[in-house]
Amino acid sequence: MRVSLGELAAKFGCELIGDPEVEVSSVSTLADGSPGSISFLANSAYKSQLQVTSATAVVVRKSDAGHCPVCVLIADDPYLTYARIAAVLYPVKSFTPGVHASAVISPSARIAESAHIAAHVVVGDDVSIGENAFVGPGSLIGDRCEIGASSRLIAKVTLVQDVFLGQRNIVHPGAVLGADGFGNAQSASGWVKVPQVGRVRIGDDVEIGANTTIDRGAIGDTVVENGVRIDNLVQIAHNVQIGEHTAMAATVGISGSVVIGKRCLFAGRAGVSGHVTICDDVIVGAAAVVTKNITEPGVYSSFFAAEKDKTWKRKVARFRRLESLNERVKQLEKAIKKNGG
Amino acid sequence: MRVSLGELAAKFGCELIGDPEVEVSSVSTLADGSPGSISFLANSAYKSQLQVTSATAVVVRKSDAGHCPVCVLIADDPYLTYARIAAVLYPVKSFTPGVHASAVISPSARIAESAHIAAHVVVGDDVSIGENAFVGPGSLIGDRCEIGASSRLIAKVTLVQDVFLGQRNIVHPGAVLGADGFGNAQSASGWVKVPQVGRVRIGDDVEIGANTTIDRGAIGDTVVENGVRIDNLVQIAHNVQIGEHTAMAATVGISGSVVIGKRCLFAGRAGVSGHVTICDDVIVGAAAVVTKNITEPGVYSSFFAAEKDKTWKRKVARFRRLESLNERVKQLEKAIKKNGG
Amino acid sequence: MRVSLGELAAKFGCELIGDPEVEVSSVSTLADGSPGSISFLANSAYKSQLQVTSATAVVVRKSDAGHCPVCVLIADDPYLTYARIAAVLYPVKSFTPGVHASAVISPSARIAESAHIAAHVVVGDDVSIGENAFVGPGSLIGDRCEIGASSRLIAKVTLVQDVFLGQRNIVHPGAVLGADGFGNAQSASGWVKVPQVGRVRIGDDVEIGANTTIDRGAIGDTVVENGVRIDNLVQIAHNVQIGEHTAMAATVGISGSVVIGKRCLFAGRAGVSGHVTICDDVIVGAAAVVTKNITEPGVYSSFFAAEKDKTWKRKVARFRRLESLNERVKQLEKAIKKNGG
Repeated sequence: MRVSLGELAAKFGCELIGDPEVEVSSVSTLADGSPGSISFLANSAYKSQLQVTSATAVVVRKSDAGHCPVCVLIADDPYLTYARIAAVLYPVKSFTPGVHASAVISPSARIAESAHIAAHVVVGDDVSIGENAFVGPGSLIGDRCEIGASSRLIAKVTLVQDVFLGQRNIVHPGAVLGADGFGNAQSASGWVKVPQVGRVRIGDDVEIGANTTIDRGAIGDTVVENGVRIDNLVQIAHNVQIGEHTAMAATVGISGSVVIGKRCLFAGRAGVSGHVTICDDVIVGAAAVVTKNITEPGVYSSFFAAEKDKTWKRKVARFRRLESLNERVKQLEKAIKKNGG
Repeated sequence: MRVSLGELAAKFGCELIGDPEVEVSSVSTLADGSPGSISFLANSAYKSQLQVTSATAVVVRKSDAGHCPVCVLIADDPYLTYARIAAVLYPVKSFTPGVHASAVISPSARIAESAHIAAHVVVGDDVSIGENAFVGPGSLIGDRCEIGASSRLIAKVTLVQDVFLGQRNIVHPGAVLGADGFGNAQSASGWVKVPQVGRVRIGDDVEIGANTTIDRGAIGDTVVENGVRIDNLVQIAHNVQIGEHTAMAATVGISGSVVIGKRCLFAGRAGVSGHVTICDDVIVGAAAVVTKNITEPGVYSSFFAAEKDKTWKRKVARFRRLESLNERVKQLEKAIKKNGG
Repeated sequence: MRVSLGELAAKFGCELIGDPEVEVSSVSTLADGSPGSISFLANSAYKSQLQVTSATAVVVRKSDAGHCPVCVLIADDPYLTYARIAAVLYPVKSFTPGVHASAVISPSARIAESAHIAAHVVVGDDVSIGENAFVGPGSLIGDRCEIGASSRLIAKVTLVQDVFLGQRNIVHPGAVLGADGFGNAQSASGWVKVPQVGRVRIGDDVEIGANTTIDRGAIGDTVVENGVRIDNLVQIAHNVQIGEHTAMAATVGISGSVVIGKRCLFAGRAGVSGHVTICDDVIVGAAAVVTKNITEPGVYSSFFAAEKDKTWKRKVARFRRLESLNERVKQLEKAIKKNGG
């Protein structure tokens, strides 16, 4: 898609420095700019790259706009404006409504005329698929699932059963929503499966990453609210609740019945123990393990950064002898006391 | 399914306090009970919820049964009895025997008359599928796999090849069993793949979670014994052996050739290094990393709980200076000695 | 496949001690050897097993060859030579060229005559599939993907779009390459998706494990160079670059824009924070979290080994009181000074 800078400036309320007739048709980094590309500068620390960019235009903050040798669109939040411009330049591939001949559809399924059901999809009983929804190739939509208008299941998505997806969701390949939670009761002869009978309810404008798993509730539902972002290979166990606009990076693991507030951020590999409640606006650092309720917004951590194995091992050895170090300090304190210290 | 309390009491050997004619048809939590639902109280700490539940009946321990305003089924282990009642109320969906027209089946495959092969399944050479087995939509059963009677592959399960599944197993969507283990030999020109020629052997009554991977053995087999429970996104490497009734929560990772005993429990994100042996009845805590053999039953841990980033960082800084703290204590000891302490 | 020891010795440049006419047809461990099997001894510590093996032949180092009761092939690197022999004994299953009737192929796709497209595969627009490539059942090859000659997608592999696979690659089931990276810009009304428009470029001779995810670049490409080995359930985020012959064990997570050198090794569950650069020949230990650039080859670690929960908790408690221990040492230092220590 080719768009003029004048059009972009008008559409996104940017001040334009340069020729409004100039067109861009691709995005680039500052370093890899090329004629026709538009780039952005979000972090002023990289400002020097503006001087050498071969991009046709850049989106920058007002304070970074001076002396830029190429066309400039000024925005309060260049990254956000870049995101919106990129969405114009790279529109989502359009699709033809209809059901592919190879799809296998239950007679009780209700599929909107404008929806697209791709090759090798299977749609179960009493499923409902909304207007302009896209169900990509190889996906499985199990019994009683509902897919809201304009939601896109890219490909090979599995909604096992009783999964309610709202509108404008994006679900990436390999994601499995609605599998049984991990419920097992102990008996004298081994584990007895605890039937998982709850649902998965996903709000609107949610994005769910590749190979991520979101289990159905054991009794009640597993709930993901509007605007949540979940990256790849994330595990969301049964009966978890995730508040609006919370985001989770890849390989995060959330145990059963955890309740997470709004606008939380989970860095990669963070984990939460079962039945923990986390309030709004909490940031959980990389690889941190949350084991108790968090009632105060802020950043929470519990990881050690990698360092040379030799120095790390020395520290671990000292850590192992903390008890005896403490004992030695105690002896010193006694000795000092005796000496009248 | 509607069932009378009298019938449930008789079936599961419970004492019933209340009208045996009363029927229940669903399960609920105590808090979200509704007419016709049955709930349970497993943890006496939540006993007060019994007073306010709107469930029609509850399963409780004898000691918790007093003053309960609704019908009561008394059980030694309320959670276990609840699990069995739920299985009555929510029977597994029945299926019609037969092979879907869209399935692609090798002529050398032997499929029991009573088995169900769903849409878009592919069945390879010399496969054997037992009585009442269910192979859900989009699954792949590779060459020489065997699926025992009454096993259920929910959907999109991949048995790559040479996978032996016993009876009454449940495998959830996206699970991949029998992929090559990670075997690489170094050569002057880079990695040389070490052919993986072993099998995967799964016992009876095993449940395997969504998107979990269990690799085939390098030479011998990867073995999962009867009654094991494995949650989502778990990695079981080549030649691992897992003893009966062991359970693993989501995102656990078990490295190659690890041998795990019976009745072990692995909390979420626990990991085990290659070639380690773990005896029976071991509990490995969340995110713990087991690097040496464990020969004594008990609980093993190695994680730090998340806390406020500021206080955490202060502790990490102190940890980094443990060597110098130790040195300071040594100096003090010398000084005290000199002072005749 | 049956092969004589004489033939193997000639093919791989080994000295043979024993009858060159003797044939082997399978591989085994030393402990589980059987007539017709060939085994190997890579670690001299297990040398005693040579005496009791029932294998027909073993591959050993010269220094371990003495007194071995069975046929011996002498090799400088027994594991490497074993790998090559195993590849002879267990050749990759051959396939018939052609496209399965159930596959759905875009008319604009170019598929080599010698390639095999299995059942229920979907091939998108402008795809190119090279000579002798194998696309296993249930795979999806999205728009504009290229698969080089002799690459094998075992089954159920998803190349979402714009994925370039070189030659002789192996991709295991459930792997998802080319899904959108995790790019989100904050706005007053919630997250705004940042279009991900880069590609995934995989070199030659790469192996990618089951259920692993490799995201497309945000702007530029995500790049995996020749000879890289990636195990199961690994996350490779957008714009990561992985140098030649680097290997990553299962459940490793690499955040966005990380640059990794050649010949690095990542043990299981290791992770790297965003935008970090790691030089060649770095070994990252199990569960280590790399947060800063690494500019020097060597081993890097940051994990604690699991131990009995009781002793672990005691250490953690001491760790929590490091600040006060430090304070106590400070007081002692003052007291000593006062005492003239």
